[in-house]
Amino acid sequence: MKQLKQPNLRIIPLGGLGEVGRNMMLLEYKKNILIIDMGLGFPGENMPGIDCIIPNIGYLKNRQKNIVGAVFTHGHYDHIGAIPYLIEKLAYQKGGLGFPIFASELTRAIILKRQGEFLEQPKLNIAKVRDGDKIFLKPFEIEFFRQNHNIPGNLGLFIKTPVGNVLITSDFKFDKNPINEPPTDFRKLKTISRRGILLLISDSTNAEESGYSFSERTIEQNLDEIFKKAKGRIIAATFASLLNRVQQLISLSEKHRRKVCIEGYSMKTNVELAKKLNYLKIKKGTLIKAKEIANYPDSKITIICTGAQGEGRAVLMRIANQEHKSIHLKKGDAIIFSSSVIPGNERTVQSLKDEFYRQRIKVFHYKMMDIHAGGHAHKEELKKMIRIMRPKFFLPAYGQFSMLVAHSEIAQEVGIPSKNIILAENGQIINLDQEKAFIEEKTVPSNYVMVDGLGIGDVGEIVLRDRQMLAEDGMFVIVTIIDRQTGKVKGSPDIISRGFVYLRQSKELLAQTRHKIINIVDKAAGTGRAINQTYIKDEIRNKIGQFLFLKTQRRPMILPVVIEV
Amino acid sequence: MKQLKQPNLRIIPLGGLGEVGRNMMLLEYKKNILIIDMGLGFPGENMPGIDCIIPNIGYLKNRQKNIVGAVFTHGHYDHIGAIPYLIEKLAYQKGGLGFPIFASELTRAIILKRQGEFLEQPKLNIAKVRDGDKIFLKPFEIEFFRQNHNIPGNLGLFIKTPVGNVLITSDFKFDKNPINEPPTDFRKLKTISRRGILLLISDSTNAEESGYSFSERTIEQNLDEIFKKAKGRIIAATFASLLNRVQQLISLSEKHRRKVCIEGYSMKTNVELAKKLNYLKIKKGTLIKAKEIANYPDSKITIICTGAQGEGRAVLMRIANQEHKSIHLKKGDAIIFSSSVIPGNERTVQSLKDEFYRQRIKVFHYKMMDIHAGGHAHKEELKKMIRIMRPKFFLPAYGQFSMLVAHSEIAQEVGIPSKNIILAENGQIINLDQEKAFIEEKTVPSNYVMVDGLGIGDVGEIVLRDRQMLAEDGMFVIVTIIDRQTGKVKGSPDIISRGFVYLRQSKELLAQTRHKIINIVDKAAGTGRAINQTYIKDEIRNKIGQFLFLKTQRRPMILPVVIEV
Repeated sequence: MKQLKQPNLRIIPLGGLGEVGRNMMLLEYKKNILIIDMGLGFPGENMPGIDCIIPNIGYLKNRQKNIVGAVFTHGHYDHIGAIPYLIEKLAYQKGGLGFPIFASELTRAIILKRQGEFLEQPKLNIAKVRDGDKIFLKPFEIEFFRQNHNIPGNLGLFIKTPVGNVLITSDFKFDKNPINEPPTDFRKLKTISRRGILLLISDSTNAEESGYSFSERTIEQNLDEIFKKAKGRIIAATFASLLNRVQQLISLSEKHRRKVCIEGYSMKTNVELAKKLNYLKIKKGTLIKAKEIANYPDSKITIICTGAQGEGRAVLMRIANQEHKSIHLKKGDAIIFSSSVIPGNERTVQSLKDEFYRQRIKVFHYKMMDIHAGGHAHKEELKKMIRIMRPKFFLPAYGQFSMLVAHSEIAQEVGIPSKNIILAENGQIINLDQEKAFIEEKTVPSNYVMVDGLGIGDVGEIVLRDRQMLAEDGMFVIVTIIDRQTGKVKGSPDIISRGFVYLRQSKELLAQTRHKIINIVDKAAGTGRAINQTYIKDEIRNKIGQFLFLKTQRRPMILPVVIEV
Repeated sequence: MKQLKQPNLRIIPLGGLGEVGRNMMLLEYKKNILIIDMGLGFPGENMPGIDCIIPNIGYLKNRQKNIVGAVFTHGHYDHIGAIPYLIEKLAYQKGGLGFPIFASELTRAIILKRQGEFLEQPKLNIAKVRDGDKIFLKPFEIEFFRQNHNIPGNLGLFIKTPVGNVLITSDFKFDKNPINEPPTDFRKLKTISRRGILLLISDSTNAEESGYSFSERTIEQNLDEIFKKAKGRIIAATFASLLNRVQQLISLSEKHRRKVCIEGYSMKTNVELAKKLNYLKIKKGTLIKAKEIANYPDSKITIICTGAQGEGRAVLMRIANQEHKSIHLKKGDAIIFSSSVIPGNERTVQSLKDEFYRQRIKVFHYKMMDIHAGGHAHKEELKKMIRIMRPKFFLPAYGQFSMLVAHSEIAQEVGIPSKNIILAENGQIINLDQEKAFIEEKTVPSNYVMVDGLGIGDVGEIVLRDRQMLAEDGMFVIVTIIDRQTGKVKGSPDIISRGFVYLRQSKELLAQTRHKIINIVDKAAGTGRAINQTYIKDEIRNKIGQFLFLKTQRRPMILPVVIEV
C-alpha cells in the first residue's frame, strides 16, 4: 500500500455496479461525504418472499456527521426507492435532518409521495434544483444539467472537487425528438467539457446494444399506426414510472379523439403528480373514469394501465383473466405491451400474451414493431458522450458486470487508455488524484440488504435457504408424546405436512411412517433411563428422512417435536 | 353437434400446443390410435420442486388395446422424455408390449439409454426406421423422411389415412449446409407433396422470427474466428443434446490441432452413443480426459461441456465458481456460450457470464455474434414448407399460443383460407374429413401432469400452493399442551419456525407470541367444559396470524398443534 500525502478523492459505489438497479454512490474528500442516489433493486429468483433489495450503508454508520448532503438524479425507483428504508438511519440522528437533500421538482414530488406511503417515516425537506443550478456542499460544488431519459426531470451532475471535476451522467440517452422536453443540448455538454473532466461516470445499461437507441419519434409513429388501424378499444400497458410513454399514449388518444382511462394505483398516482406539476400535458375532458368507459363507443377509448411485466396483481393480468371489475375484454380490443421485458419475467409475460391470443385478442409487442424505446444510450451514443467529455479517467457504472466490461471496451475504442479505465465493483474504494486512479485493497460492506415486510436486513442466508428448501419439497412435522414412566410413545404420533404430498391420497404412506416413528422412538427412548430428546429427534430426522426419500425421492424438511408426559 | 355418417380422422394433441415442449399427439380412426412422440416439458416458475411435466394420458386409459403403435420423430427430450413415465401404463397391460414402437437409429439409442436409467422400467423393443422407410400400422401407412434439425436422425412423417394424407414436419429447419447430414432434399419433399396433402401439421417454434434461420455454415465461420484468435484454452458450453454443435466444435478443434475434453455426464453419454453409431466423426486421439488437460499447452485444449443455461450443478457453473476438480480458470481462457437462453433462465445466465467477466475471462455469447443457430424454421422457411406441401388444411403445432397464431398468419399469407386453419389447443379433438375440419365441443384431459421424484401426477394444486406460500414467508408451528383438568396451557408453548424470521435474533417477538398464545388458549379452552380443539386451533391461527402480520408484515403458514393431557 502506498502512503497518501495529498488527500485523494474517494469514490465508493454501494450499489449499481455489477447489477441493474440499487444505485447508490458516495464521493468522499477529507471525511466529507456526498451521497448520490439511493435506489432499490429487484430480488433474484433465489430470494423468495423478498420485496426488494437495498444498498448496505454499513460504511456510513458512525459517519452520519460527515455527510454533507444527498442529491438525486431522477425519480425512478432504482435511484430513489431505498430512501424510506435508509434515510432515517442516515439523517435523523438527533431528531433533526442531518444534511440537505436536492432533487428536481418531479423527482422531489415522487420521493415525497412515496415517503408519505411509509406511515412511520419522517417528512423530508427536499430542495428543488433545476437545469443550470449550482449548489455548494463543501467541498463539493455541484452543477445540475438536463439529461434526456424516459422520465422528465432527469439531471446529470457536474461536480467540482478539490482533486478535479467529476461528471456523472445519470441514466441517459441522446434524443433529438424527446417527449415534452427539449432535445439533448450538445452545446451545453461541450461547455461543461471545456472545464476539464477528470473522471466520467457513465450509464452502462445498454453498453452491449449496438448503434443508437430509438428516438421517441419512431416509437410515436409506430404507435400512431396502431391507433389509426384500431377499430375497437386500445389497452396499452407500460411501466407506471414511464411518464414519457404515458404522455405519448395520451397525445395519440387526443389526436384520434379517444378518451383515456388510467388504471392501476401507481400509474394513477404518478399521472396525477406529473399533471399537477405540468410535466404531463392533458387536455380537459380527455381523462375519464373506468366506469365511464361504457358511455363511449369502443373506437373512442384508450386504457393505459400497469402490468406489462405480467405482474400477478396488476391491471393487465386482471383484464386478461376477466377479473377486472369494469374492464371486460371483447372482440376488437387491441392490447399494446409498450415496454421491454425485464430479465426473469419472460415466461410470465409470454403466458399473459398467450391468454389474450387464446381469447382471440390482437396483441402488439416490442418484438413485432418498435413500440418501446429504452431510456439508455446505446454504444454509439456512449462513444459520443466520452468523446464530448474527453475525461482523463473513466468509470462505467449502472449495469451488470458484462455491461461494465462492454462499456470499458467502448471507452478504449474512443481512446481512453486501458489503465485509466476503472472496472470496479460495489464496495470497492476508488482513489483518485489528478494523476492516477487506483482501487484500495480494503472494501466497505456492499452485500444485498433484503427488505421483507417490515424487516430490513433481518432475512439472511439461513432464512432464505429454509424458504428454498420448503419450496422444493415442503415440510413434515412429527409430534411424538413419550410416556416418561415407560419410555414408550403414547398414542399415535401427530403428523403435519404441507407441500410434500397430498395427505388425503397418502394414507398408506402416513400409516407406514407413523409405525416407523413409534419403532424409532421406542428404541431410542429406551426404558429406565433419562430421555435424551436431542438423540431422539436426530433419530427421527435421519431415519424418517431416509424412509420418505426412499418412498418418494423427495426430501421434505423434517421437524420432530418430542413431548414428555 | 352434427351426426357423423362416414368416420372422420380425429387428431388429438395431448401436449405441445400452447407451450414449448411436452409434445404428444394422437391420430385416431375408427378407434385405432397412433401415438406420435411423448415429450416432457420444463416446470414453470409457479411449480417449485417439480422435476418435469408430462402429457396427461387419461384419454388412453381403457383404450390401450386400440393403440396400433407409437412413432418418435427425434431424440430430444421434448419429444421422447416422457416415455419412462408413460410407456408402462400404455403398453404393459398384460405383461407384454402392447404395440410396436418405431424410431430412427439414434433416437432409438437415446430412448433405450434413458429407459435404462429408470431402474424399474421394462426394456423396450424399438424397431429402427430410416429415411424412406414405410410401415403399416393399420389403418395408417407411415413413411419417414429426413428433416434437418440440430440433432441427427430427425424424421418427418407422411401418414396415409383412410381420410387423406397427413404430413407432420417434426421440429425442422431448411439448411443448405447442415452438419454431418445431407442438405434438405426439396425434390423429395415435392414428390411427397404431389401425393396430395390433406393436413399439414408444422413446427411453430420460430414462427415469430422473421427471415430465415442461420445456416450452420455461418455459425461455423464465426466459431472458426474465435478458434483462430484464441491463445488459451477454449471452454465451449452448449446443450448436451445439441449433437450438431458438438460435432462443429470437435471438427474445429481438430482443424486447429486442439485436443477435446468432453465434460458433463449427459454430454459424455450422448457423445459416446452418437460416436458408436457413427453420428459423430471424431479422429482417433482427439478426445482426452479432464486429468490429461495439464499435459498439453493451453492453446491446444478445447473443453466442451454442459451448463450454458446456468444450471446450478452443471460443469460450466462449477468451473466459474472454481469448484471443478480438474478444470481451473486461468487468464487467457475463452468461454463460448453456444446456445440460446431458454426463457426463464436469463438472470441465471447473466450471473454466470458476470462471474467470468469478474475473473477477467473473455466471454463469447450469441448476442455478440452468431455462434448459435436454433433448430427451427423461421417465417420464410415456414412459408416455403406450406408452399411446397400445399395442404388443404393446416394445423400449427409445437409452440406457445402466440407462435401458433403467428404461424396461422403465415399460412394465410401464402394462401391457406382462414377457415381451413385449425388453431387448436391441447385436449381438443380435431375432426377431419376430405371436405372439412372442425373442433369437437368435448375435450380430453390435457392438464399438466407433474413429476416430482417418484410421484407422477400426485402433486396437485394444493401441494403447489402450499409450497409457494412456504417459500414466501415460511411457516410457524405452535405446539400447545392443555391440561384437561384446568383447561389451561401447561408450560410454555413450543414454537418451530423456518423461513419466517431468524429465530435467534427474534427472541423478543417469540416471547410476546408465546404470551399471546397462552392468553388465546386459556380463554378459548375455558374451564369445566370439553375442549374444542377445532375452535382453539382456529383461534390460534387467526389471532397469531394477525399478530405476526402486524409485527412483521409477513404471513407465515401457521400450524397449531393442540395436545391434551
